[in-house]
Amino acid sequence: MTENLTSSVHSLLQQMTLEEKIAQFMQLATHFYEGSFSAGQITGPMEEMGIRKETVLNSGSVLGASGAREIRSIQDAHLKENRLGIPLVMMADIVHGFETIFPVPLGIGCSWNMELAEQSAQVAAKEAAVSGIHVTFAPMVDLVRDPRWGRVVESTGEDPYLNGQFARAFVRGFQGKDLKTDLHRVAACVKHFAAYGAAEGGRDYNTVNMSERELRENYLPAYKAALDEGCEMVMTSFNTVDGIPASGNATLMRHLLRDEWGFDGVIISDWGAVKELIPHGVAADEAEAAKKAIQAGVDIEMMTPCYANHLQELVESGVVAEELIDEGVIRILQLKKKLGLFENPYRGADEQQEKEVVLCAEHRAVARELAEKSCVMLKNEGALPLQKEQKVALIGPFAESGDILGAWSWHGSKEKAMKLADGLRMKLDSAQLLVGQGCDIQTGTEKQLEDALRIAEQADVLVLALGEASSMSGEACSRSDIRLPQVQLDLVKRLKELGKPMIAVLFNGRPLDLHGVIDQVDAVLEAWYPGTEGGAAVANLLFGDSNPSGRLTMSIPFSVGQVPVYYNHFNTGRPYYPEDTESHYVSKYLDIPNEPLLPFGFGLSYTTFSYSDATLSENTLTKEQPISLTVKVKNNGKLAGEEVVQVYIQDLVGEVVRPLKELKAFKRIHLEPGEKKVVSFTITEEQLRYHHANLDFTSDPGAFIAYVGPNSEEGIALPFELQ
Amino acid sequence: MTENLTSSVHSLLQQMTLEEKIAQFMQLATHFYEGSFSAGQITGPMEEMGIRKETVLNSGSVLGASGAREIRSIQDAHLKENRLGIPLVMMADIVHGFETIFPVPLGIGCSWNMELAEQSAQVAAKEAAVSGIHVTFAPMVDLVRDPRWGRVVESTGEDPYLNGQFARAFVRGFQGKDLKTDLHRVAACVKHFAAYGAAEGGRDYNTVNMSERELRENYLPAYKAALDEGCEMVMTSFNTVDGIPASGNATLMRHLLRDEWGFDGVIISDWGAVKELIPHGVAADEAEAAKKAIQAGVDIEMMTPCYANHLQELVESGVVAEELIDEGVIRILQLKKKLGLFENPYRGADEQQEKEVVLCAEHRAVARELAEKSCVMLKNEGALPLQKEQKVALIGPFAESGDILGAWSWHGSKEKAMKLADGLRMKLDSAQLLVGQGCDIQTGTEKQLEDALRIAEQADVLVLALGEASSMSGEACSRSDIRLPQVQLDLVKRLKELGKPMIAVLFNGRPLDLHGVIDQVDAVLEAWYPGTEGGAAVANLLFGDSNPSGRLTMSIPFSVGQVPVYYNHFNTGRPYYPEDTESHYVSKYLDIPNEPLLPFGFGLSYTTFSYSDATLSENTLTKEQPISLTVKVKNNGKLAGEEVVQVYIQDLVGEVVRPLKELKAFKRIHLEPGEKKVVSFTITEEQLRYHHANLDFTSDPGAFIAYVGPNSEEGIALPFELQ
Repeated sequence: MTENLTSSVHSLLQQMTLEEKIAQFMQLATHFYEGSFSAGQITGPMEEMGIRKETVLNSGSVLGASGAREIRSIQDAHLKENRLGIPLVMMADIVHGFETIFPVPLGIGCSWNMELAEQSAQVAAKEAAVSGIHVTFAPMVDLVRDPRWGRVVESTGEDPYLNGQFARAFVRGFQGKDLKTDLHRVAACVKHFAAYGAAEGGRDYNTVNMSERELRENYLPAYKAALDEGCEMVMTSFNTVDGIPASGNATLMRHLLRDEWGFDGVIISDWGAVKELIPHGVAADEAEAAKKAIQAGVDIEMMTPCYANHLQELVESGVVAEELIDEGVIRILQLKKKLGLFENPYRGADEQQEKEVVLCAEHRAVARELAEKSCVMLKNEGALPLQKEQKVALIGPFAESGDILGAWSWHGSKEKAMKLADGLRMKLDSAQLLVGQGCDIQTGTEKQLEDALRIAEQADVLVLALGEASSMSGEACSRSDIRLPQVQLDLVKRLKELGKPMIAVLFNGRPLDLHGVIDQVDAVLEAWYPGTEGGAAVANLLFGDSNPSGRLTMSIPFSVGQVPVYYNHFNTGRPYYPEDTESHYVSKYLDIPNEPLLPFGFGLSYTTFSYSDATLSENTLTKEQPISLTVKVKNNGKLAGEEVVQVYIQDLVGEVVRPLKELKAFKRIHLEPGEKKVVSFTITEEQLRYHHANLDFTSDPGAFIAYVGPNSEEGIALPFELQ
Repeated sequence: MTENLTSSVHSLLQQMTLEEKIAQFMQLATHFYEGSFSAGQITGPMEEMGIRKETVLNSGSVLGASGAREIRSIQDAHLKENRLGIPLVMMADIVHGFETIFPVPLGIGCSWNMELAEQSAQVAAKEAAVSGIHVTFAPMVDLVRDPRWGRVVESTGEDPYLNGQFARAFVRGFQGKDLKTDLHRVAACVKHFAAYGAAEGGRDYNTVNMSERELRENYLPAYKAALDEGCEMVMTSFNTVDGIPASGNATLMRHLLRDEWGFDGVIISDWGAVKELIPHGVAADEAEAAKKAIQAGVDIEMMTPCYANHLQELVESGVVAEELIDEGVIRILQLKKKLGLFENPYRGADEQQEKEVVLCAEHRAVARELAEKSCVMLKNEGALPLQKEQKVALIGPFAESGDILGAWSWHGSKEKAMKLADGLRMKLDSAQLLVGQGCDIQTGTEKQLEDALRIAEQADVLVLALGEASSMSGEACSRSDIRLPQVQLDLVKRLKELGKPMIAVLFNGRPLDLHGVIDQVDAVLEAWYPGTEGGAAVANLLFGDSNPSGRLTMSIPFSVGQVPVYYNHFNTGRPYYPEDTESHYVSKYLDIPNEPLLPFGFGLSYTTFSYSDATLSENTLTKEQPISLTVKVKNNGKLAGEEVVQVYIQDLVGEVVRPLKELKAFKRIHLEPGEKKVVSFTITEEQLRYHHANLDFTSDPGAFIAYVGPNSEEGIALPFELQ
């Protein structure tokens, strides 16, 4: 930070009372604030929480306010009463779009498209900024391996490198280059630090247990990537990390995040997470929770009053050093400076621009393009693309449903979302499209089924729009059974009896156990929750007006009994080779394969790509001298398409066991029919580093194999050595 | 060890060549040895493994030989050729009985009966010792939380304290007080060091990942307990521990086991585990595998030739210090001394005693008693006990099956096992017992089903003998689906239609998802694999001639999607209370409860017990001054019975999160009808210690709650303080 910024903040700090300082740490939702349109609710919760009016008047930030008019009104009311004129900073969860909703992050991940991911964050930032928001609680970059966990929908997947790339893209998109001058950007807050995605049993908020080496090797890199990109804030996670809840974990935050990584931005707790140190069992009461959180490094306490009610006495009694308080206040004031709030406390909030910008056609177009790139075609035995002359029966609970936005679509409107039926109506004459529900998401009636069978009988091809309600994934929405609800599987079975070509389009927030669907139908398009333009995007893909190009970023398990299953696993000492039928004592299940149903990196297209002439510039790499890997990729089909060329590396012998494959690079390329391209990658020593037993992040000389190919299971092997 | 023992071993060591020393480290199966009755096979595998005849002649131990005659013959042939006359030590897996097979350890665990557990090991030791065996690869004390893992059948369960108690009991039973003079004992080898039970995904041999604190807190105590009881040997595990395979893990073995714990006995690799450092990916070749294993602390290499073929060159080239070799040889020679092999190389091997002792009536009686105590009655709505006047249809694949011994019943004979039908025949006139198979374990025919329905129609009550084949659990036998095979669930459903009282007796090697059984029948008796006397024991229980008293030591999950589920879990920051229907954002699944179907410590009896007058002698405990907990337990019923009175403690606030409950003490008591007993326990500061963030094992002053009751979910709460 500049000297100027620092000094002005310090002089402000010197004018603040201890109470004013501590109030900066408090973050409450809008209804606590005068000027808010929900202001009438102030008294109740404030009294219940034991927070005094003065504290609210001096508070530093607001949670979840939006709309230029409301935000200006809250800021006005605040500044009128605030002794030192310190503006509020407005924070909210803008996760995958503001009103223009993009695919859920699990879908965006499947695009492998950093430009569009960045653009989606930029669009979200613009809509949020003109609506008065200054900080978004995004990106969520938690590495995920357990599809039972509802919040896998908010993550870009199971790979540390790819998650890191997306983390950077989102941060660039949200923040731009200068938050002070670019009023159409917002500050980003990477979450949830750390390892929230490893909740035991896939049950949200549950215990996380792993070694520090595993934490550093796989779980931390994406948070670090976001910070390296300049992300302004960090949010703590709800879970324990080695027995200590993140929000009271000094090892994690003070030692690692602050001291080792040098992060000097604001750390905010997740909702209520400071007070949750009590039920976690590491604090006896609010005062101890406050002490542990501030000592661990949490600056802002979201929605609980441990700081507000206890920090003053803790400082005055000498338990907590006032320097700790000052450090936190400085960070918060610096953030406000960076956002330009002292000069312009309304920042981007602009009712006129709000009308023009939010959900504008240009934004919807970006959402449609990203939705097209996010869908993954999992199977196609020729039923796709649809032909315009076919008579189509669209059947299923998602046929006419706007519930295609997914979790964390705060300002998204299901009514304004393009439903799949509407998307198909843009492609087909009304006589060619028959629509029926078949069943609801979890239940169904005989009449729904009969209606569906009746229209199915009249059609040439059946498009089944199936899935989970968006309330079946996201926060606190873990499922132990990851199949589609039984009523939908029954619907598939009944329709199958008609013997017509069937295509399943799936709307869901996690990798599902697809048995009962993928084995019954001719084609499957995984649409995740595609967002506001979902119906249009899916229709384009179904008719081949756009060529499917999404690739899975989370393995689709064979069944829940196989979880966790992920591509970058270890070999074990007794690897199982199915072709070796002699060996009994190998690492396997008696009843299912070891491999997921569909692997990381997998996705089909309406064309096919072939790989040839894979070669390395040298067989030996040194620290000083990288080598290059080149491969020729050809489009063998009659349609233009996009391929994600993926490079994985295996370190054959390590001091600690190394994964069988790790994604190290990829390129998304466009090929016209018949076109060939030579794609090249650089392999550097840096890519070969890993965390050793002593946690040193270094490489070992020795043998490696690079694999280049279309997914994590198929690839051309190229051995090389690191000297 | 005594000075004398040490000095004679040292003088022997000084006479040994390096080659002779290294040969002591080799352990091969019997067919490599002259004198073995499978001697004809020597040449093949020896050549294939590159082992020279001289090495075999000098080798230190033999794997899996048994029978007094064979063992004497191998030892004779060996001593005839061995230059220094160093006898072989004979090792084998005697896990839950030699020929007299006891319940599988998961069943023994449910007995909560240390006296009988010790007696079972003593019986096994005696049968093994007279058959010539010197060392058993038992006890297996791996803590288990994942019922998919096939080897949960070999463990006593999910609790570190209880596993430690059993570890001690088994070691006492195997080893007795003096291995040199008590020729009816064998040396024990605790396994698998370490944390083998935490295989990811429940897939055998798979990656293990946890923090060192978790390892020390939950996984290590049972191994330590075995060593504290004097266990002579330790076997390494197949898995990685924080990325390094146990058999090459110096942190685990040299630093923790040897230096910190002071273990100076022999460490042996599991089968092939040294060479498996290569597929694990931490050794490039056999030489590197040998180097890593010897440096980590493995003395004996089982069944692979990395030591035999490479240690000499590693020592001669200075890579491995000869002191390391000498240390290992000394330990092996000391073990032989302790076993008295230098004086009597045949030790207990005695063909006459073999005939008298093995599978004698006295041993079968112990097996029957332990089997009765191991079965757990999971449900009883009045269908049990059976009445002698009832006409019983015994139906199911285990009705007439001897496959009730379970995994690792090496010398056990299914033919000599008492089948359930035979057990019932001892209770009922032949006219009163109808027996049908119903189906096979995984498949069935229409005829089998019809036959079963026919006899069921003639009966008053149906006893269903269901389960998993013993080959569906044990090593390399992981299942992703933990329900009974579908054909058996279908059988239950069809029989249910008859509307008759139904009792399920389950033979299986893991906690199963019991849906489709427990909800269909009136009573369930979990028999695990009860061993040689299984049929008699189960019949005694079914007829009330013995009162069920087993208690679960591994939670029975609601479904596989809930795994891992264990009683001593954390609270989380957002615990779920089902009665609070308002709170959405809590740690739960959308589709199943958080609680297991049946909890740790649970088991029914034909009587009921009530708990009253629970009290603590003081409300405050100090380091110097323990307190006592007393409770009155009354048998309310008309049958004598046994109750396992269980004491759990919760530490309300820790530096790291503490489990909601931890088993700290228990007593198994016998109560006549109407009898009351006051049961008392001592609570000490030592029981309140745990591993802090810095790994210190200490207690924290503060508030605790003791719970005394019949299982981990029900108990009377008694708050107290540690000063």
